[in-house]
Amino acid sequence: MKIEVSWFFYASIIVSLLAFGAAFWLYKWVASQPSSNKRIEEVGKLIRNGANTFLTKEFKTLGRFCAVAAIIIFILLPVPIWVGNFRDNISMAVSYLFGTCFSAIAGKVGISIATIANIKAAEASTKGIKPSFMSGFRGGAVMGMAVVGSSLLGVTLVLMLTDNTTALLGFSFGASSMALFAKAGGGIFTKTADISADLVGKVELGIPEDDPRNPAVIADNVGDNVGDVAGMGADLFDSNVASMSAALVMASALDKITGGSLNMSMVFCYAAIGLFASIIGVLTARMNDKENPTRALNSNTYVTTIIYGVLTALATYLFDFEWRIWLASAIGLCVGVLIGIASDYFTNDTKKPVHAVAKASESGPAFTILSGISYGLMSTLPSMIGIGLSALAAYKICEPLGEGYPMFGIAMAAVGMLSIVGMIISNDAYGPIVDNARGLVEMGDLGDKALEITDSLDSAGNTVKAITKGFSIGAAGLTVIALLGAFISEVNASALEMGKEVLTGFDVLNPAVFFGLLVGAAIPPVFSAMLMLGVDRNAQRMVEEIHRQFREIKGLKEGHKDAVPEYDNCIRIATDGALKELIPAGLMTILATIIVGFIGGVQAIGGFITGNIVSGLIFALFMSNAGGLWDNSKKYIEAGHNGGKNSETHKATIVGDTVGDPFKDTAGPSINTQITVVSLVASLTATLFLTFSLFG
Amino acid sequence: MKIEVSWFFYASIIVSLLAFGAAFWLYKWVASQPSSNKRIEEVGKLIRNGANTFLTKEFKTLGRFCAVAAIIIFILLPVPIWVGNFRDNISMAVSYLFGTCFSAIAGKVGISIATIANIKAAEASTKGIKPSFMSGFRGGAVMGMAVVGSSLLGVTLVLMLTDNTTALLGFSFGASSMALFAKAGGGIFTKTADISADLVGKVELGIPEDDPRNPAVIADNVGDNVGDVAGMGADLFDSNVASMSAALVMASALDKITGGSLNMSMVFCYAAIGLFASIIGVLTARMNDKENPTRALNSNTYVTTIIYGVLTALATYLFDFEWRIWLASAIGLCVGVLIGIASDYFTNDTKKPVHAVAKASESGPAFTILSGISYGLMSTLPSMIGIGLSALAAYKICEPLGEGYPMFGIAMAAVGMLSIVGMIISNDAYGPIVDNARGLVEMGDLGDKALEITDSLDSAGNTVKAITKGFSIGAAGLTVIALLGAFISEVNASALEMGKEVLTGFDVLNPAVFFGLLVGAAIPPVFSAMLMLGVDRNAQRMVEEIHRQFREIKGLKEGHKDAVPEYDNCIRIATDGALKELIPAGLMTILATIIVGFIGGVQAIGGFITGNIVSGLIFALFMSNAGGLWDNSKKYIEAGHNGGKNSETHKATIVGDTVGDPFKDTAGPSINTQITVVSLVASLTATLFLTFSLFG
Repeated sequence: MKIEVSWFFYASIIVSLLAFGAAFWLYKWVASQPSSNKRIEEVGKLIRNGANTFLTKEFKTLGRFCAVAAIIIFILLPVPIWVGNFRDNISMAVSYLFGTCFSAIAGKVGISIATIANIKAAEASTKGIKPSFMSGFRGGAVMGMAVVGSSLLGVTLVLMLTDNTTALLGFSFGASSMALFAKAGGGIFTKTADISADLVGKVELGIPEDDPRNPAVIADNVGDNVGDVAGMGADLFDSNVASMSAALVMASALDKITGGSLNMSMVFCYAAIGLFASIIGVLTARMNDKENPTRALNSNTYVTTIIYGVLTALATYLFDFEWRIWLASAIGLCVGVLIGIASDYFTNDTKKPVHAVAKASESGPAFTILSGISYGLMSTLPSMIGIGLSALAAYKICEPLGEGYPMFGIAMAAVGMLSIVGMIISNDAYGPIVDNARGLVEMGDLGDKALEITDSLDSAGNTVKAITKGFSIGAAGLTVIALLGAFISEVNASALEMGKEVLTGFDVLNPAVFFGLLVGAAIPPVFSAMLMLGVDRNAQRMVEEIHRQFREIKGLKEGHKDAVPEYDNCIRIATDGALKELIPAGLMTILATIIVGFIGGVQAIGGFITGNIVSGLIFALFMSNAGGLWDNSKKYIEAGHNGGKNSETHKATIVGDTVGDPFKDTAGPSINTQITVVSLVASLTATLFLTFSLFG
Repeated sequence: MKIEVSWFFYASIIVSLLAFGAAFWLYKWVASQPSSNKRIEEVGKLIRNGANTFLTKEFKTLGRFCAVAAIIIFILLPVPIWVGNFRDNISMAVSYLFGTCFSAIAGKVGISIATIANIKAAEASTKGIKPSFMSGFRGGAVMGMAVVGSSLLGVTLVLMLTDNTTALLGFSFGASSMALFAKAGGGIFTKTADISADLVGKVELGIPEDDPRNPAVIADNVGDNVGDVAGMGADLFDSNVASMSAALVMASALDKITGGSLNMSMVFCYAAIGLFASIIGVLTARMNDKENPTRALNSNTYVTTIIYGVLTALATYLFDFEWRIWLASAIGLCVGVLIGIASDYFTNDTKKPVHAVAKASESGPAFTILSGISYGLMSTLPSMIGIGLSALAAYKICEPLGEGYPMFGIAMAAVGMLSIVGMIISNDAYGPIVDNARGLVEMGDLGDKALEITDSLDSAGNTVKAITKGFSIGAAGLTVIALLGAFISEVNASALEMGKEVLTGFDVLNPAVFFGLLVGAAIPPVFSAMLMLGVDRNAQRMVEEIHRQFREIKGLKEGHKDAVPEYDNCIRIATDGALKELIPAGLMTILATIIVGFIGGVQAIGGFITGNIVSGLIFALFMSNAGGLWDNSKKYIEAGHNGGKNSETHKATIVGDTVGDPFKDTAGPSINTQITVVSLVASLTATLFLTFSLFG
């Protein structure tokens, strides 16, 4: 059956609107759940206000940044305005702003629902695990639907309006720059609050976690929302847009050669099916009678995966798409699941690594650290092999289709891996919501039964998080490989226009490539170090403030009724500090890309992107997995193993967990976005380096 | 002036013999120093015997390994014996064995002198800092002269006897496989003993470091010798041989094209001058009246550098060598020094990073770890830029000379960087000798004055060590880039013979290359994790043994005169464990190279080597610098800052130091060798992958 590409545009728009409809329905459902506890309402409101304070400030700061970036983009990209034409530059700049806005809106929606769902889930926990689970999951699902719906809608609209795939890169860059700041800023915020609250509360004063006397406790709960909900949403919005953009850039180049629009149609068709499958998965999700929340979350994922597989096969048959590309996309999805399982092995508390770290901790904190780092480093291997092999397989499978198809196959593997991202985000956002609910149960004094239920929901969130993190790193890996292909397409299009030689590839024996490779590989470690030092500095500021409050507010330590801590001060410190600390790291990344380009030209940039991808993946996997491993080792000890709670071993694992927190929630997941940003900055500025470079 | 290459062969042999003469003279000088203290003699003998026990066992294990490897090499390399000719294969296998023996002899000489010089330096410390310094330095210099003399002699002899540069790669591979085991095995040994001794002695029982009651104290001192002296010697022997071999492989290819032997002559000439300059530097070394040991060590290095620069310029003028290549080599040397300075910044206790880690430690051990890891990660950037820029500069400088010269320029930059390696080894081996001397002074009760003097000598050793480590990592980086060039030469020579297509490079857009890149990058983290877990497991075994001795030997804890600990048991555990733990890591590296080759062919191997270099450099720099940083932060606190000795801050830095120990002395420096091994295995087996691969 032959169908115009515009048909798929409309289909995508319809599916996006369906997703928004689903999100709206879920939102209403969550909001209609009962909540009667005054204390919880009150604290919940503090959290919501805190999150909004952060978001408003972040958007203001970013607004300025993006305005400047948009002007620069307008002047210089895709080619300097005095060389190219006005229309291209304006559509690039507008697409960029469009990307930032879509990402911001999705983040805002996520925060709004998360700060309602946490209250509902807390309240429902007094009635049983099922209603509490449903509030948490459906809250997360609002975020999932909003993010994926707006990414598909955004990409479709940009392409329909500009009819220009380069503008897509602008849109994608907007999403990336937003994600970089949301992820890194949120990550710094959340860990600042978490570490400071624990350091003064649990360690110095010995009061429990989430105790309302602690001035940082609200900031800590806000952090879960701005870091894990908004940040993660922006991150996956970014990956999703980037993978579709890369695939579309290549598809459009292929379609130009063969005529027609089969390949572009295919990208939209698969993406729309993925979103549709996620909608079905989300709406049909229930907790079965086993009452095991982890199983419930995973079974939703499998349902979505199967629906996606069947429907894309059907579509491929109906619309005469290439079966080889279908296979590439299916491989991507399978490898994504496999990488998730590998991450799970290294962080699950029923597996050897967690037990080994717990055992090593008996000799003291140094051994917690050494063994955690060791297993974290080892955990990189299976995922790196998985990403590498799936790229190789996708390439080889699509090779017989002719020139250009192999790279397109890799891009479609990334699209396949990200096809069920709606489901993944729902599962992931569920985590911080029930984590918050647990805090509210504690602060609202809802009783031990409710605490037990929210504890078990929270623990399921942690387990699933490891899988979704592995998944999103794998997806980013394949996406950036595809972006490397898009980079070449961009460079060659400009080179042809300028009458320069066309690139055939990046040879590592070319010293400019090698130079780029070495410098690019050093960026992720430096970037993550800057973020971690930022957390450190910021936490010191907040600890000072907490000390001040305990000193100056009379009766606070003793828990007098009228002694209310100044929660807002802590939120302000976390907010200001996060935005202050993330700017240098973000700018360093962007400037390094440009400087390397001006030194070594496009060849150096090709090497730079490659080195950045390779070392970025290693550090992202290492840090995420080591962090999860330490967290779960601590929980494993708290469950009574190797000496149990309050033993010396437990103290050692607390050290591990404190080190792991910025690893897994600040630095590790931000690297993903950092890689995408570098790839996009490079693609967008490629033409400039063709015009001028020192050694290129 | 035109001179035959054979002239330079003889000159190299003469300079090598001069080096042996200098080593012999220094050995005699050190041995003739007075030693009268019975107790020190006794303990010194225990250390010497322990070191010899380790060496003998290691050589036995390695002997078997090397015999098997030699047989495999004989059958398969450079081409399978049923394809190629018998003579080539036998010369390859013999060169390989030759390489292992030369490395072993140099290691043995180093251990012999180090275990004499430590006694002499301890004894001399009662007379003043100058005589003690001279014993330590001249002891180290014996090692320096022996290592560099035998590497130059070995390379020259192999080339004279076989007239075949491929055999040089066999020799180099012998040196590498020896270095891999010596460095990793010694590294596991030394940290096993160090950690266990500290854990039971300092932490549990509260007895001082180097207390003779501690059953692990001799093993700890043996460890300094087998890890830092023998291991580091084997490592730099390996780098030195590898850099010369890579340069000679390319020089010989160039000479074949141009006729004559100018380029090969140049390599030998520069290497001989480097050794000659080191001999002068070593023999004229004195401590000036400022009595500052760090300054004395550094000024020797500057003297050597200047002599080298002047003499090579003179030789270039006299023998009509290319000035551009001279410049490339000079750049290599300068960058080496600069990398050393950067490492110094991140580890020196007068600089910001050490102060920041000390300050962060006030909040507890988690912050010691976080800040140390952050600065360690940051420290990778300047060196990566330095290595990348020097390779780029060397390439561009030599580009006008014609095809093949740019890569040769990079190889010569590596030769330049390693030219003063004789001096570097002397400075480096000085460290463990005076460290041992400090232990002997403590055990022999030679008084506070002597302790103070050896403390100051030891501290200088630590400072210089950071510089030499940065230097050796930089040198390894340039060397392996050059080896990548050698790999291509090898592959193409075989490809031509077999009538296959010639390689022009490794394009990262080729999925086989990218697959290799991703997997290759994961090897250094996995390799270092295996070594660290090995240390962990081995330390647990030794701690058990120490506990057993304190339990079963009556009066040991109280220090009764007849209660003698069973030192030998600890040495045996460290030895057996080290050899047992290093085999899987070593084999993993070699097998991974071969498996990737069989999956993806030579293209994948090219990517694999590249990924391995890039991530290997990052992890080597990160681990070495973070380790040094933690060590010096602890010392900085012990000197009375941020709370001083026995404060909570001090305890936090002890955790950092314990984590840093296997970082800087086991994993970090072993990665160097691991990279070289991968490059050489790949070059040697390249032909096999041309014949067969799954996707290649």
